[in-house]
Amino acid sequence: MATITILGAGNVGQHLAKALHAAGHHIVQIYNRTPARLQALMPLLPQTTQFTTQLTQLLPHTGLYLIAVADDAIAAVSQAMPAIPGVVAHTSGTTPMSALAKHPRRGIFYPLQTFTATHTVHFEHVPFCIDALLPADAVLLQNIARTLSQSVYAITDEQRRILHVAAVFANNFTNHLLAIADDICQTNGVPFEILKPLIAETLKKTEQQPPRNVQTGPAKRADVHTITQHLQLLEQYPAYRQLYRLLSDSILALYHENPK
Amino acid sequence: MATITILGAGNVGQHLAKALHAAGHHIVQIYNRTPARLQALMPLLPQTTQFTTQLTQLLPHTGLYLIAVADDAIAAVSQAMPAIPGVVAHTSGTTPMSALAKHPRRGIFYPLQTFTATHTVHFEHVPFCIDALLPADAVLLQNIARTLSQSVYAITDEQRRILHVAAVFANNFTNHLLAIADDICQTNGVPFEILKPLIAETLKKTEQQPPRNVQTGPAKRADVHTITQHLQLLEQYPAYRQLYRLLSDSILALYHENPK
Repeated sequence: MATITILGAGNVGQHLAKALHAAGHHIVQIYNRTPARLQALMPLLPQTTQFTTQLTQLLPHTGLYLIAVADDAIAAVSQAMPAIPGVVAHTSGTTPMSALAKHPRRGIFYPLQTFTATHTVHFEHVPFCIDALLPADAVLLQNIARTLSQSVYAITDEQRRILHVAAVFANNFTNHLLAIADDICQTNGVPFEILKPLIAETLKKTEQQPPRNVQTGPAKRADVHTITQHLQLLEQYPAYRQLYRLLSDSILALYHENPK
Repeated sequence: MATITILGAGNVGQHLAKALHAAGHHIVQIYNRTPARLQALMPLLPQTTQFTTQLTQLLPHTGLYLIAVADDAIAAVSQAMPAIPGVVAHTSGTTPMSALAKHPRRGIFYPLQTFTATHTVHFEHVPFCIDALLPADAVLLQNIARTLSQSVYAITDEQRRILHVAAVFANNFTNHLLAIADDICQTNGVPFEILKPLIAETLKKTEQQPPRNVQTGPAKRADVHTITQHLQLLEQYPAYRQLYRLLSDSILALYHENPK
């Protein structure tokens, strides 16, 4: 089991701190710029764990320093850390490893999952994307990841960037489309509940077949009449209307040689 | 149990024929314009079920005639049917009840689900949207729907149109975004598998909380730096890039007062 310091007590940092502690690792110290989030974590971790709001007070002999702060703060936090002999890794999907350039033993420990404070994450099914400058440190990070999850991948900076943008489509944007569907239903007095089995079915299909092969709907059928009706129906929602048009065009382009 | 004739042996007609037969109804006759799909259905239904490619050969004394043809053929099929004493209902999410104007006992029997030939549909969780010109026929259609499903709703033409356009966002468009994520992964040699737990988590959250409340991602955080990086990364995919921009703008507009 490893000795681990976590920098950042936001959603990712909190979930990782709890899960790494539960997996038997020793959480040496948790840093956060502001004290409020640290106080929320204190009751969940052993009394031996230390808490600090000062990077200068980081204890120097931890095996792994996990930087789980906002993407645009990673480089600054890395730079402000004291030089330490352990591995320094960040948990970001977008930030290159070079943001940790100050530290000779640097790497990536990126759990590809969506984290919200209110929703429990079961890490055993969360894919971890691991990288490190030194091969021995990659093995160390992979071994720690395997104590949390069955899915551990060696992923380069370039692959991680691709995964992150694909994840924005597969997760953030799909969720936003569901929010739009919910909004259209609500503002018209139709229960969004009616759509939930359809949403569940859509997802279930994806687990079994490539999404490209199970596409349905007006644009897939090149059913221009229905598309036109829907665009009329959406006239009171100009932003949704524009999205409807662009998404339909994209589907038409994919499945029909001469899209409308 | 009802006597039912089904017009149209496409995905919806086939799934309904099998499910209504399994629920104990008597499938009197199945019509399809071309014989190939009828032949595929014959082994799945009892020998007493008749099959025809001629609307003029429809048997006149069935309790319910379910029109499950393509949306743009519903009015023509309804018009070409002989006058009959039973109820005539269609299964479309977009077509108004008036498309069946020839028939005094007309209604809607719309299963809100995505049907693909290769994927089995379990109707017990499929919401049925029911409407009818005469209240007694609405009761009849609701009772038949309840033999297939636990979720039966009285839904007007206007509500059904809204539901259908919301379903295009929640189902067709989300599936297309998953296809885009798959494509981006594949063309960059990254396994799409890595994203599947994230996709499952996204859907699971929606069952518990309104999607608007669980939005995550760069646009939700107004993380313009990451959005800019992603747009650069997508330069080789101009159509995806345009979608990324429009969807991010839509999220920014929803969660931030002064969207970029």
